[in-house]
Amino acid sequence: MSREQTPLEPLSVASSQPLYLQIKSALAQRIQDGHYQPHERLPSESELMKVFGVSRITVRQALRDLHGEGLVFSVQGKGTFVSKPKAMQNVQRLQGFGEAMVPQGYEASTRVISVQEVRPPQEVAEALGCKQSDLVIELKRIRYLNREPISIDHSFYPADIGRPLMGRDLTQDIFPLLENEFDIALSFADLRIEASLAGTGEEQYLNYPVDSPILKIRRLVLAQAGRPVAFEILSYRGDAFQYHLRAER
Amino acid sequence: MSREQTPLEPLSVASSQPLYLQIKSALAQRIQDGHYQPHERLPSESELMKVFGVSRITVRQALRDLHGEGLVFSVQGKGTFVSKPKAMQNVQRLQGFGEAMVPQGYEASTRVISVQEVRPPQEVAEALGCKQSDLVIELKRIRYLNREPISIDHSFYPADIGRPLMGRDLTQDIFPLLENEFDIALSFADLRIEASLAGTGEEQYLNYPVDSPILKIRRLVLAQAGRPVAFEILSYRGDAFQYHLRAER
Repeated sequence: MSREQTPLEPLSVASSQPLYLQIKSALAQRIQDGHYQPHERLPSESELMKVFGVSRITVRQALRDLHGEGLVFSVQGKGTFVSKPKAMQNVQRLQGFGEAMVPQGYEASTRVISVQEVRPPQEVAEALGCKQSDLVIELKRIRYLNREPISIDHSFYPADIGRPLMGRDLTQDIFPLLENEFDIALSFADLRIEASLAGTGEEQYLNYPVDSPILKIRRLVLAQAGRPVAFEILSYRGDAFQYHLRAER
Repeated sequence: MSREQTPLEPLSVASSQPLYLQIKSALAQRIQDGHYQPHERLPSESELMKVFGVSRITVRQALRDLHGEGLVFSVQGKGTFVSKPKAMQNVQRLQGFGEAMVPQGYEASTRVISVQEVRPPQEVAEALGCKQSDLVIELKRIRYLNREPISIDHSFYPADIGRPLMGRDLTQDIFPLLENEFDIALSFADLRIEASLAGTGEEQYLNYPVDSPILKIRRLVLAQAGRPVAFEILSYRGDAFQYHLRAER
């Protein structure tokens, strides 16, 4: 069926759901079934008011909820557009970004923002089991998927592990480097996953507006003897990325 | 050392970090080390300007980033307050909310908003492997931790599984009910984890402002023969909850 043959239908009056939720569902379905393609413009507020026979407030509430779920984004003065589907990473395995994404057919690349010796913030010192007066190596990188910035990776390494890294090509995944060149056998990582909002760092490096949703991962990587090898704070664009895992009963 | 003996120190001019990040770090550390307790008021903007010798814009940028990370919250006209540490759930095991949180010492409770037969949205029909014209059972619940609303659980069950649930006490965990009373052996769940923003539903049911961060989980629960038993959309307050898991190398 061509797209012209399936216009949006007026809402059924029988439904018990609030109007804005019915409109939201109708639009979400059109996005999920591919009727509206990524980066396509949705009908304007006025068009949606006419099609659904509702007020501007109701249309806006529906669009706001679509926005909150990441299905659409707005461009000032241009309208509301369909978001691209999110990239997905399985978190069950401890993998670097490239290791995880390239086999899925993504082009993954990395830009190094800075690498330096610093005295660690308390959270980092606690995670690495060192003192705040000890020096650690701080590495800041931006990760790109298909040439678009998707995460800020903020990694801290104990000095004896981090210093030898400093002369290396740090645009590659660090885990294989540690294993293959420095003979450090990685064991597992503990992850804490939460939702937060973009700050000025995300705005600057991810080109992502302040107060947009951010998926924030704190990852403590341990070597086989249980020794902390890295503590990382990964900030993913919430509109572009999701984590995937399987939980056994 | 008593708290009065450790006032905030002016910033060191030697640091290469932007001023607002230095202020943010200084305040974050005070929160993390317990100097500022949960629900304690932070110094006012004017006080922070004086202590750190910076402009109001810089102080606001630091507070905004603390806010984005969930370390503080604001009360209109009253100031900025320290958030409580987040509750944490391990997601490696497929567990109900009560099963997961009660052993950690939380008081977990549940309020049923609605349970009804509905025709599923496309996403739900695809997950459950049914047609959109089939009826499914939709259960909407609010979860409370220590009497505060923490998540909206929006669950869908195939009709033959969901109908027998309708006469039961649905404030309890559904997984043990399915296993112990309906003899359905649960196998595993596939989870997709992402960050989004609160909409009007979260505002209404979680008492959580629109556009605040939400940790959103889509969970497809499968029985041992691989049959879909439930598809759930769980929306957790981003300021109060984090997921935890271990990833093996």
